[in-house]
Amino acid sequence: MVYLTRQEHFNAAHKLYNPQWSVEQNEAVFGVCANANWHGHNYDLFVTIKGEPHPDTGFLYDVKKLSQLIKSEVIDALDHKNLNLDVPFMAGKMCSTENLAMAIWARLAPHLPAEVQLHCIKLYETPRIYVEYYGD
Amino acid sequence: MVYLTRQEHFNAAHKLYNPQWSVEQNEAVFGVCANANWHGHNYDLFVTIKGEPHPDTGFLYDVKKLSQLIKSEVIDALDHKNLNLDVPFMAGKMCSTENLAMAIWARLAPHLPAEVQLHCIKLYETPRIYVEYYGD
Amino acid sequence: MVYLTRQEHFNAAHKLYNPQWSVEQNEAVFGVCANANWHGHNYDLFVTIKGEPHPDTGFLYDVKKLSQLIKSEVIDALDHKNLNLDVPFMAGKMCSTENLAMAIWARLAPHLPAEVQLHCIKLYETPRIYVEYYGD
Amino acid sequence: MVYLTRQEHFNAAHKLYNPQWSVEQNEAVFGVCANANWHGHNYDLFVTIKGEPHPDTGFLYDVKKLSQLIKSEVIDALDHKNLNLDVPFMAGKMCSTENLAMAIWARLAPHLPAEVQLHCIKLYETPRIYVEYYGD
Amino acid sequence: MVYLTRQEHFNAAHKLYNPQWSVEQNEAVFGVCANANWHGHNYDLFVTIKGEPHPDTGFLYDVKKLSQLIKSEVIDALDHKNLNLDVPFMAGKMCSTENLAMAIWARLAPHLPAEVQLHCIKLYETPRIYVEYYGD
Amino acid sequence: MVYLTRQEHFNAAHKLYNPQWSVEQNEAVFGVCANANWHGHNYDLFVTIKGEPHPDTGFLYDVKKLSQLIKSEVIDALDHKNLNLDVPFMAGKMCSTENLAMAIWARLAPHLPAEVQLHCIKLYETPRIYVEYYGD
Repeated sequence: MVYLTRQEHFNAAHKLYNPQWSVEQNEAVFGVCANANWHGHNYDLFVTIKGEPHPDTGFLYDVKKLSQLIKSEVIDALDHKNLNLDVPFMAGKMCSTENLAMAIWARLAPHLPAEVQLHCIKLYETPRIYVEYYGD
Repeated sequence: MVYLTRQEHFNAAHKLYNPQWSVEQNEAVFGVCANANWHGHNYDLFVTIKGEPHPDTGFLYDVKKLSQLIKSEVIDALDHKNLNLDVPFMAGKMCSTENLAMAIWARLAPHLPAEVQLHCIKLYETPRIYVEYYGD
Repeated sequence: MVYLTRQEHFNAAHKLYNPQWSVEQNEAVFGVCANANWHGHNYDLFVTIKGEPHPDTGFLYDVKKLSQLIKSEVIDALDHKNLNLDVPFMAGKMCSTENLAMAIWARLAPHLPAEVQLHCIKLYETPRIYVEYYGD
Repeated sequence: MVYLTRQEHFNAAHKLYNPQWSVEQNEAVFGVCANANWHGHNYDLFVTIKGEPHPDTGFLYDVKKLSQLIKSEVIDALDHKNLNLDVPFMAGKMCSTENLAMAIWARLAPHLPAEVQLHCIKLYETPRIYVEYYGD
Repeated sequence: MVYLTRQEHFNAAHKLYNPQWSVEQNEAVFGVCANANWHGHNYDLFVTIKGEPHPDTGFLYDVKKLSQLIKSEVIDALDHKNLNLDVPFMAGKMCSTENLAMAIWARLAPHLPAEVQLHCIKLYETPRIYVEYYGD
Repeated sequence: MVYLTRQEHFNAAHKLYNPQWSVEQNEAVFGVCANANWHGHNYDLFVTIKGEPHPDTGFLYDVKKLSQLIKSEVIDALDHKNLNLDVPFMAGKMCSTENLAMAIWARLAPHLPAEVQLHCIKLYETPRIYVEYYGD
């Protein structure tokens, strides 16, 4: 078994606030991340798949196709967007990096062909903070 | 003469739109950057100063003081903020990286001691796009 | 289960020598790393924790609290220090990156709350050499 | 158990084509990677070994010896070479990053001493694409 | 005046040899870079332009247009190519990074609009070697 | 004119203290950098030279020779050393990055051949702090 990773990039606005809490409670828990006027990030996304290389190509999967799949299913929905307002699959969820990584997994996994498996979604929120999700 | 650079970091939301233009005109010029609901970035800021090292310390300037100055005059005003709505010194300006770099220069320059000069503001908007400003 | 990583930084002096060996034996095994007058490094530290995101916040753990914990338990004890002379929890140990990573694990693990687990300590000694430790 | 990683670098020319296919079929599957006149890459190679640190040294393994081993067994055979024409252990194989990572594993594994085990070969083909192989 | 930089990427095969010299002379001067079967690199290209931001947009120049221009005039001609065989504007020239940077300048400069000037071509051949050219 | 840069690496111990000052004065000015037991860094060194490429080679200067020169004149004297105790050309000087960059310039400049000029010494002390020196 071999693991293949493709890195992609998007940027977006978001804020962290729980609508069931008061403004004060949100600020106490989320600090500057609760700014009502939003803030934003350059997100770096690493998608890792696993499987056996095909004998005819030496490829686990064509990395250009993987890149196109990530773009059509994930990047197009997130890039230059407001994660709280513009992204249907984040509606009603806290916009943490943890939840976003799990949502990206759920978006991508059904679109991979049968012979490859999604292994990991790794998502950088800042150059010093990242989340990894390996499925359930 | 020696040049000393300190890198700092902030993240913020913004959008690019000219209030004197129609929505269509803004979208034609700024594309996804005109998204009404904002988007955002992790900005990397490089501040370069120049001058002569002091014989007693070997320092052009104490880099911890430079870092504190950048934080109090620039980072505190920009980090986790909406550049269009929350930043008085960007009010009425287009929120391009070019204009932001020039505004950061104007904020920092008056606070440096007489023996050092501000040389360059370098500002990354994404890992592949940056602006440099060396003053007038 | 989700994994959250925070990167921190410290720099320190150290040397590699076994006090039970002769100078010649130390130089034969450790080469320039045995220099009696010390050398040093910028260490990059990646701390990874794992667990379930909390439904109220979407957070596995508040990354600011994780950063403060790493600083108070690890960085304050190591930054701008001599690893052989100034660090009680390295006393009597060889100052290899392997041993330092394991000692950092032992420092941090007892301070994490019950709902999160320490998963990995990753420690860069130079940009091209790093050690990972996942506990026993 | 501790994991130690050493990063090395080489650059090489290659192309992707299946000699049992027509030119058209190769271009349809491999696109610009099938260019008859070759293209090339700067490859970044991360070799990870695992085991117990030795009590006398604190080392899992002397990282200088690991570097020399990678150079003599892998880098010398690949650096500034044509992977399709100049590398006996890639002869008759598709020159994909997947196959190259597996071939590097096969080259290195027999040369490690009994007390350490090869854990992972991670190979970057471009800054945004990499493969990992952990053995069978 | 403000400076705006866009980073792009291509990979290519090449070799260094002077056709007026013997094989032995080429190997003596160029070493492994003279390998008859080619080698290759991932090249990182930084294009810097300068001028005044436009008051309506805050832009020196639309960075998407700059990126498209670099792609159509430079990247399409070089990416996944053999620099010695496939690139008309390198024909008859030594394929050094110095010459390639100057040739990229000559390709791009005529296509920039009157209000911006090309300032610098910076070209990485490996992560540790780069060339800069600022025109004549 | 073309500019060619080669990046090299060394690590070293040092401390910042002025022997004409009291311990208290040193700690007030240099803080943790005055730790009597030293601390250390991984230094990244960028050496930039300038001149005309030679028509026979396309090279400003053979980058392997430049690398060997930097190693023999600079890296061998600094790597795995104590900058205050082990380096004759830093004796009696404050071990700031500013002074070290200027001393590296003085070491290298006389060894370059007549047809190339030293242009810049850029020295990273940490990933976020660097100094540049362009000569007098």
